[in-house]
Amino acid sequence: MVYDKDKILQIVKKNEQSEIDCLRKLVGIPTCYNKNHDMKPIVAQLTEEFEKRGYKVKTFPTSGASVVVAEMNLGMRKTLLFYNHYDVQPEEPLEEWKSPPYSLSLRDERLYGRGANDNKGPLVANLFGVQSAFEAGYEPKCKIRFIIEGEEEAGSIHLEEFCNAHPDLLRADGCVWEEANAVPNQRSEVSAGVKGDAYFQLHAKGFHIDAHSGHAPIVINPAWRLVWALSTLKDEKEQILIDGYYDDVVPPRREELELFEKYPPDLLEQYKQLYRTDKFLLGRDGVEFWKELILGPTCTICGLSGGWEGPGSKTVIGREAMAKVDFRIVPNQKVERVQKLLREHLDKHGFSDIESRLLTGYKPSRTPVDHPFVKMLATLAKDFSGRDAVLIPSSYGSGPAYLFGDYTPWAMCSTFDPESNIHAPNESMRLSDLRYMTAFIASITTELGYT
Amino acid sequence: MVYDKDKILQIVKKNEQSEIDCLRKLVGIPTCYNKNHDMKPIVAQLTEEFEKRGYKVKTFPTSGASVVVAEMNLGMRKTLLFYNHYDVQPEEPLEEWKSPPYSLSLRDERLYGRGANDNKGPLVANLFGVQSAFEAGYEPKCKIRFIIEGEEEAGSIHLEEFCNAHPDLLRADGCVWEEANAVPNQRSEVSAGVKGDAYFQLHAKGFHIDAHSGHAPIVINPAWRLVWALSTLKDEKEQILIDGYYDDVVPPRREELELFEKYPPDLLEQYKQLYRTDKFLLGRDGVEFWKELILGPTCTICGLSGGWEGPGSKTVIGREAMAKVDFRIVPNQKVERVQKLLREHLDKHGFSDIESRLLTGYKPSRTPVDHPFVKMLATLAKDFSGRDAVLIPSSYGSGPAYLFGDYTPWAMCSTFDPESNIHAPNESMRLSDLRYMTAFIASITTELGYT
Repeated sequence: MVYDKDKILQIVKKNEQSEIDCLRKLVGIPTCYNKNHDMKPIVAQLTEEFEKRGYKVKTFPTSGASVVVAEMNLGMRKTLLFYNHYDVQPEEPLEEWKSPPYSLSLRDERLYGRGANDNKGPLVANLFGVQSAFEAGYEPKCKIRFIIEGEEEAGSIHLEEFCNAHPDLLRADGCVWEEANAVPNQRSEVSAGVKGDAYFQLHAKGFHIDAHSGHAPIVINPAWRLVWALSTLKDEKEQILIDGYYDDVVPPRREELELFEKYPPDLLEQYKQLYRTDKFLLGRDGVEFWKELILGPTCTICGLSGGWEGPGSKTVIGREAMAKVDFRIVPNQKVERVQKLLREHLDKHGFSDIESRLLTGYKPSRTPVDHPFVKMLATLAKDFSGRDAVLIPSSYGSGPAYLFGDYTPWAMCSTFDPESNIHAPNESMRLSDLRYMTAFIASITTELGYT
Repeated sequence: MVYDKDKILQIVKKNEQSEIDCLRKLVGIPTCYNKNHDMKPIVAQLTEEFEKRGYKVKTFPTSGASVVVAEMNLGMRKTLLFYNHYDVQPEEPLEEWKSPPYSLSLRDERLYGRGANDNKGPLVANLFGVQSAFEAGYEPKCKIRFIIEGEEEAGSIHLEEFCNAHPDLLRADGCVWEEANAVPNQRSEVSAGVKGDAYFQLHAKGFHIDAHSGHAPIVINPAWRLVWALSTLKDEKEQILIDGYYDDVVPPRREELELFEKYPPDLLEQYKQLYRTDKFLLGRDGVEFWKELILGPTCTICGLSGGWEGPGSKTVIGREAMAKVDFRIVPNQKVERVQKLLREHLDKHGFSDIESRLLTGYKPSRTPVDHPFVKMLATLAKDFSGRDAVLIPSSYGSGPAYLFGDYTPWAMCSTFDPESNIHAPNESMRLSDLRYMTAFIASITTELGYT
């Protein structure tokens, strides 16, 4: 190791208030893409933060949200890339937030706010991490480049425009995907893959007006149509019933299953803690748990809506009903094929009346877990945390990493936090995580440059 | 006929502005029971309107909304009863209203507003109808009694308290149920029955927090649980799959089927006009259409909710999901038995985790269509409209008529209006209907008293 851990941590500590202030400014700007929040203020704020630290910043407009690219150390041969996003999930249900979502709130050593964890917090940690490497005397021997998009939570629909036009900006020796963290005495997870995601909105329509529920014997009820259609998609054993859905799925490899067998029990305990349960879906446990979570394709109802949803007994047949369904797909499944199979399935089962619209489509992507960059992250994580890192061939999540995968190895490195509430009310990050994340980034920056 | 139709109509016309003003005051008071609207203002307003016309008014508190009883002509032997309700359906979806729901708006000869038709309009017509009989010189030779409740749209949960305590107030020679109307050249429908209604709220629960949809392989998804459970309740042929559900259903009688066979085609045309369709559920037509609409028990999803219902693709597994399901029941089905069968069904199919709560329960009720009061309404309707009235053994709807059925024959008499939007946005009543309704009530009042 080139770096001096303690020295780095001292500098991070020294800059902490300034780092929190930086995060406070970013969290304070509402940036939910699907809510049409104005993204100009966040782009301006990011530009200011990066420029004042010596980065060259360029904004690339797309048909959607702009992509912010910040670079420094341009003369170097190697490149370390950071992928982050400045957009956030919707804040609903608002009434469950204990402090306003768009205002950073420090309580009990945690930083609360929408985006505090996903992904503004890590973005700030990356920025201050690089900075700390400099201040510690390890001027990075690599180019540093940030690519920060604004539609990740909405499917990164327009990021492809940017990526197709600027493949040169995607080329790097390693890409820290969204976040990297390592905490003393806590286990790090290095994830070097993502599932894809085909997210659909299904619509059932009846007659042109809401009907009195007494008319049930003669009126088409979209809620029933939708329920019947959905019930044909997956059974209670979690078998997805769409013909051909599993055809392209690469079966689990022996090495992967062996990897899962060696996963320490505390890794699964974390999930028990998160969900306050001893028993998961279908009693899944051990290798089965990891096999499904890491490698399994899914079919999930993410939303349901129709008719009367308020209090009491309104006797009505709503004129339409809606479901959101996402399919997490794995190599070598394809979004377009899932879309085609879903349509065919609905038609074949008599549900041609149900509209299906693809809202977002991510491909799966994998960096081999034995790639030097992935191994470097695991080694650094062990050095920082004092514990062996766990290698995760693929995250349960999805993202636009497939747009980068052909140009750079990428990975994320995270430490479990049962109270982060990502995508939920009261999203937060431990203050200590912000600190360790920042220091860990300084170590990565140093290590990649000097080795 | 004792009365002079033209004379009555002249008087109704003379009072029209005052009648509209009375309705305006009532519609202007929001009275959705499930929204916890304050009912004191409407009770005070009703008391004022009735008292100033010589009624003796008494308010009977219940555990829920109060029941208003107004009486006059107390010395008479016969009694004509009016059942009305001052509460209304929820106004949602608010954005679809062209004028505010709680403000009476006259446009294109229609009176718009929540409750304008169901049931404040008819209530006002009843009040002014009796008044018009007096003014036309036909002092009614019967007691007049109004029973006006405030929870009809919420299941009349507490009306039973009133009815059990005051059976004497329910005894009458005839009860006009909610409304009676007859319009020149339009067909009247005399309905002398209601279906019952067992309205349930189903709840599925998962873990204690919303989850990232990537956790689908390990997290219980309440939306899926609910969809699977619902799909076991009824199939696409509209067969209700709950064991024993049909056991108590009295099969259609020959006389009923013969009645349906004689229904004029224009009766069904009205439904085609209402729903702008030529084809109803499962292609139901002719006798089959009426048999199901009038005699068929139902199972209807009235509401569905869960997870992310906003725009775009939020990748979440909601921690709970909800459905509202109503069962319109027919003689001799019972609410309690449906409740028991539903619970048993869910348990038997592996859905013990799904909570089922009865929100409202109405029993079915029937006055025989050959009862003298029903026949009197039909005869008067023919005299007023110039067309044979259609006798409907049971409305598709439900109501607390079963609480009255043992004490009085009851019926409603209505004229089809495809644009009334009852239970929907832009509820309205034709101005002409208010007029004819009022005059028709005057004729009933006169006829019952003098014959």
